[in-house]
Amino acid sequence: MDIEKTLAALTLPEKAALVSGKNSWYTAKIDRLGLPALMMTDGPSGLRKQTTATNDLNQSVQAITYPSSALSASSWNTNLLRQLGEHLGIEARAEQVSLLLGPGVNLKRSPLGGRNFEYLAEDPLVAGKLGTAYVQGVQSQHVGVALKHFAANNRENQRFTASSDMSQRTLRELYLKTFEIIVKKALPATVMASYNRINGVLNSQNHYLLRDILRDEWGFHGAVMSDWGAVANHAAALSAGLDLEMPGKGQASIDEIVKAIETGELDEGTLNKSVRHLLHLIQDCQAAPQAKTYDHASHHQFARKLADDSIVLLKNAHDELPLVPAKTGKLVVVGALAKHPRYQGAGSSHVNPTHLVTPLDALADSGLSATYYPGYRLDDDETDEQLADAALAAAKTADHVVVFAGYPAEEESEGFDKIDILLPENQTELIGRLAKINAHTTVVLQNGSVLEMPWIENVAAVVETYLAGEAVGEATWDILTGKVNPSGHLAETFPLQLADTPMAPTFGQDPHHEYYSEGIFMGYRYYDTHEMHVLFPFGHGLSYTTFEYTNLETQADAHGATITFDVTNTGKVAGKSVPQLYVANHASHAPMPTKELRAFTKLAVAPGETQAVTLHLSRQDFSWWRERKHRWQADTGDYEVMIGESSRDIRLQTKLTMNFENAPAPLSLESYLYRVIADPRLKGLFQRIVITPLSQPDVPANFFSELDADGQPLAFHNRMFLNMPLRALIALGTPDKPIKTFIRQANQDR
Amino acid sequence: MDIEKTLAALTLPEKAALVSGKNSWYTAKIDRLGLPALMMTDGPSGLRKQTTATNDLNQSVQAITYPSSALSASSWNTNLLRQLGEHLGIEARAEQVSLLLGPGVNLKRSPLGGRNFEYLAEDPLVAGKLGTAYVQGVQSQHVGVALKHFAANNRENQRFTASSDMSQRTLRELYLKTFEIIVKKALPATVMASYNRINGVLNSQNHYLLRDILRDEWGFHGAVMSDWGAVANHAAALSAGLDLEMPGKGQASIDEIVKAIETGELDEGTLNKSVRHLLHLIQDCQAAPQAKTYDHASHHQFARKLADDSIVLLKNAHDELPLVPAKTGKLVVVGALAKHPRYQGAGSSHVNPTHLVTPLDALADSGLSATYYPGYRLDDDETDEQLADAALAAAKTADHVVVFAGYPAEEESEGFDKIDILLPENQTELIGRLAKINAHTTVVLQNGSVLEMPWIENVAAVVETYLAGEAVGEATWDILTGKVNPSGHLAETFPLQLADTPMAPTFGQDPHHEYYSEGIFMGYRYYDTHEMHVLFPFGHGLSYTTFEYTNLETQADAHGATITFDVTNTGKVAGKSVPQLYVANHASHAPMPTKELRAFTKLAVAPGETQAVTLHLSRQDFSWWRERKHRWQADTGDYEVMIGESSRDIRLQTKLTMNFENAPAPLSLESYLYRVIADPRLKGLFQRIVITPLSQPDVPANFFSELDADGQPLAFHNRMFLNMPLRALIALGTPDKPIKTFIRQANQDR
Repeated sequence: MDIEKTLAALTLPEKAALVSGKNSWYTAKIDRLGLPALMMTDGPSGLRKQTTATNDLNQSVQAITYPSSALSASSWNTNLLRQLGEHLGIEARAEQVSLLLGPGVNLKRSPLGGRNFEYLAEDPLVAGKLGTAYVQGVQSQHVGVALKHFAANNRENQRFTASSDMSQRTLRELYLKTFEIIVKKALPATVMASYNRINGVLNSQNHYLLRDILRDEWGFHGAVMSDWGAVANHAAALSAGLDLEMPGKGQASIDEIVKAIETGELDEGTLNKSVRHLLHLIQDCQAAPQAKTYDHASHHQFARKLADDSIVLLKNAHDELPLVPAKTGKLVVVGALAKHPRYQGAGSSHVNPTHLVTPLDALADSGLSATYYPGYRLDDDETDEQLADAALAAAKTADHVVVFAGYPAEEESEGFDKIDILLPENQTELIGRLAKINAHTTVVLQNGSVLEMPWIENVAAVVETYLAGEAVGEATWDILTGKVNPSGHLAETFPLQLADTPMAPTFGQDPHHEYYSEGIFMGYRYYDTHEMHVLFPFGHGLSYTTFEYTNLETQADAHGATITFDVTNTGKVAGKSVPQLYVANHASHAPMPTKELRAFTKLAVAPGETQAVTLHLSRQDFSWWRERKHRWQADTGDYEVMIGESSRDIRLQTKLTMNFENAPAPLSLESYLYRVIADPRLKGLFQRIVITPLSQPDVPANFFSELDADGQPLAFHNRMFLNMPLRALIALGTPDKPIKTFIRQANQDR
Repeated sequence: MDIEKTLAALTLPEKAALVSGKNSWYTAKIDRLGLPALMMTDGPSGLRKQTTATNDLNQSVQAITYPSSALSASSWNTNLLRQLGEHLGIEARAEQVSLLLGPGVNLKRSPLGGRNFEYLAEDPLVAGKLGTAYVQGVQSQHVGVALKHFAANNRENQRFTASSDMSQRTLRELYLKTFEIIVKKALPATVMASYNRINGVLNSQNHYLLRDILRDEWGFHGAVMSDWGAVANHAAALSAGLDLEMPGKGQASIDEIVKAIETGELDEGTLNKSVRHLLHLIQDCQAAPQAKTYDHASHHQFARKLADDSIVLLKNAHDELPLVPAKTGKLVVVGALAKHPRYQGAGSSHVNPTHLVTPLDALADSGLSATYYPGYRLDDDETDEQLADAALAAAKTADHVVVFAGYPAEEESEGFDKIDILLPENQTELIGRLAKINAHTTVVLQNGSVLEMPWIENVAAVVETYLAGEAVGEATWDILTGKVNPSGHLAETFPLQLADTPMAPTFGQDPHHEYYSEGIFMGYRYYDTHEMHVLFPFGHGLSYTTFEYTNLETQADAHGATITFDVTNTGKVAGKSVPQLYVANHASHAPMPTKELRAFTKLAVAPGETQAVTLHLSRQDFSWWRERKHRWQADTGDYEVMIGESSRDIRLQTKLTMNFENAPAPLSLESYLYRVIADPRLKGLFQRIVITPLSQPDVPANFFSELDADGQPLAFHNRMFLNMPLRALIALGTPDKPIKTFIRQANQDR
């Protein structure tokens, strides 16, 4: 297609039609010019291709249901996320889908966020690297993604109007950072502007966000679509940089745009820009090879493999796990969720699975045999004494108990936020009672986001399976039996209680504003800096083997640093380690977290084997967003590099001195005496130009006219005095001329 | 004096002289018109009248050294604060001082704030009520005050330039609130603009602060002076509302103003306004009656009485205290601070005492006898083994040990912030060792602000004397022996560790900005809302007797509420209770702390006696600052009233429903469905105008065209759907006409 010729051939109503969705799942087609409609479906952990024109989110064609992002991100495995993308891309093509509406990469800011299960991490690097791999995987199959929800859409209540209010530094370093990484590295076909506002401006109509940052700074050249129903004024949205309003309001949308052009509210050149972006998108989709079918069984196996690599072993006292079939003895499985598992979230990411395998289904193939007791009802929070008693009686004489527990499906969905992070009362009570009568009790969790665990001290083991997808049963037993050695690590901190979260007092409290007042101190950046006790730290995940870290070495230049170290599997079974590289910034005069994740990897290590790991840190990895200069800044000075298995389990650390050749700011009347004193050159100059002349007995009273026994000005070694700017010396009686001469001279001599 | 005539008679250089201090302690005098110089001296806990022209803060005439504000505020006693003001006023007149530079009423935001010892509280009501009493006391003696440091001057490092960055709500509800209370109630003669900026604008040149808020909103009609050296541009300061630059730069200041008038940079009408304020001030000071001398002994006794009422008994396990002389047995006193006490802070509040009585001096009169061991050196943080061993050997065989400990004087001063809140290493170690060998160990603390106490679990009792003034020795034994029953309560929270403070990661980190990102969640508003463990909560203070609280009753109308309850002394000795009234706001759609102090009192109760207490809450006590409307707002709805002996020791509580007759906002396209559903009238109207017509089978697909088995629209009972604004229904395919008709009708019918 010749884009410019096609553009010239389009009538105004046709252009208006192109920038408005035809309906929920298609863009407009222009038969006259051979422009096809593009089909899109919800993602991101499976296709939700709706079969009817209804708004019922649960009516869609069958598709492989992969683990929700909360679980797959716990793999910390970019290779597997890329493969997930490839599998989804193949499935999309088989279903004639051109655009997959995902991945969702917003940060998990509050545990109450209703959509956390669909998102990857509390840290922008983890979300950015995993998101990049996913996008590259999908797009390798000639299917486009919609990177969403751009940006700072971290709350569901009042999501259509609430403003995410935060500093530019917070926005840049956290909430935009993930998008920046993915846009620059993976070139997503489209970006989806989210419902919310940022600092008062609706994202779908936000010029700063959609043009200044996304296109001009980051070089994005795809199309920007709206979230479904996010646009309040279509002409304003197009002017701000949106290209496609979804789902579109039919003829009303076309009329609206035509009128806006006629009245001058919208410039036709601006409209043409958007049409060009959409024509490019259509061109790319047309270039995709013919669709092929796919092998459901092998895709299901991939869903299992991804869950295997992602499930997190949170606690394993006295090696309670694995439950090796030959040695396990009498096993009792408790919990209705073993039979009716929670394995995916609700809302636009809801998938109609091809082949759900529940934990009870998969038990037979696990090698274990067990008796099953529901233990509690799923449709009621109250304890059912009969169910509980039966489970407890069986557990009493069991060698091991595995209890399945989970957060209620109806409380965890797109579209609204949670009100707590507690298991239902009947499950909490049952776990407590089971733990009391059987010390070998393992809890298997099914939930989309973090939970409080008041019973944590009393149970032997805890396995976090999040929402594990249609292979939930197989993957759960893979981990429990040790067929697979767990290697998932948390991509979010589990606090001890909801009140410990930094935004606990404010989250969702104001219908119009969400105050990001914790700033960059979110997630482990908050808990670690405040030295808080947490339930499980960011990055935590146990294994059936152990890893030793040795030989940390660093090499730095003006562009960044290279960090090397060795990882040895010191246990008896093969396993995968997730070395995490954190950096503490001691070089910058700005508030800094005690550590920030700057690199990570995942590697399989055989027992006794040692592998060398090399990680690179770019200048950007040392940079912070300096508000007053409105730019990234990397400071010369000292940093600390830490290698850990979690943010609280640091195994190696060393100092790293970086030299980025920043020139110091010139001196001014606002410069403080302590700065003058800290620099030998400035101190000498100050002594010569200011102190010596003003210390003469004939100079009227000022800070330099009174000398101590050693002939030094009295005030000059006083901390209160050093904490004065040069301007204050004048205001307090020091003649201004020598001070001004000193400043001039100091700046000339640099 | 006829102000207008005098103004007309003044030349421009004379006016310029009047708005510039003559030097550090005097305003300019105009002999020609009989305008005297006004003398001012530093306060606020004693006169610091300098005798030389030096900048040495420790050279001043002898004066009564009262407890520092950190201690006197712990009295929670407005009567005593008023008396303190009266005593200071009498002393000022005796020294020909017209203006006392105090009180300092900034909130104690971070424990690291170098000047916290000079300030009253972390809560604006405590600081506001006590500050009001103090100002009324001073001014009753025809001496003016300088209410300082206006405003948000909560950090000392880079105090001349750093900007206190915060929301308007935070500014209004916390950092301006104390000033607002005092200005409106006590009419201070002057207000002192502080060094810092607020949201980027230098306070001494801040029109919004000095004119819009201070004068126009609060009705202040005194004079505004600068802190010493706070003005960067005198003309700009005068334009913004400052009246007097201190200390003035002599002829340079006069030339500067004259030039600014000539160039038009400064308007002469503006200058005249300031001159008028200063002439009024001179007039008021001239009207003061003749100076009289005062009785040093009785003023010293008042210093002792104030400390007696303020010292806080923090811990008293197994009634370790009081040490009744007849029953105490062998007593050992440890700690060099018993002999060389810290009893005041450093900087402009430093006083040259008339009659310092150290704890060792006062021991003889206490009725107790004891042997004294220094235990540690004050000039060194390292343990002196010889000193420690001697103290430990004596303590081993003692019946009781009292150890004096304190924060180092050189680390706690105006002019710079602290770097930790730990006792010196040698003192911490000694306390630990003493506690180990003698279970009857009492710690007496001398410090300006909160401390960490790693040894807290191991000592029997802790007495917080802060900086107790020149009667430190007498007051300390008054409390220890039970001659006075302690009744001081903390006006600040003691956190477990510095890292627990909300601003720990950011305080003082940025040289240019202080981020008040905790917002209104400061002090107990933070710790209580986050359910954090603390060392000692806000409002905490023990007594040698016990109080019971009963019969809580409330009565409310549209103007406020009256709260009554009874306090009974259920112990064996007379004592004073400090009932604290906290309110929780459940009525407002905005983030709210779990409780806020809204009233308090202090009352002496005899053993067995019951007293009725009545406290009033005004509409303002239920109000919060609504940013978008830029006004205070009191909401109709439910509140919880709590009566406690600290923020964590709530003895009585009850629900209170207030009706302030607020009209709900009109409906708009931005209004959410959940609001429509919650109101039966709106729900009925919506059913009739929107749902019923759109539910017809012939209407194209929209949210209302699919009905469930009961004939109700499918989506309508879905939480995700209810969390949509009316605008989103249209964007997602619902015809706009019925929606718009509904909104019109709903707003008409109100």
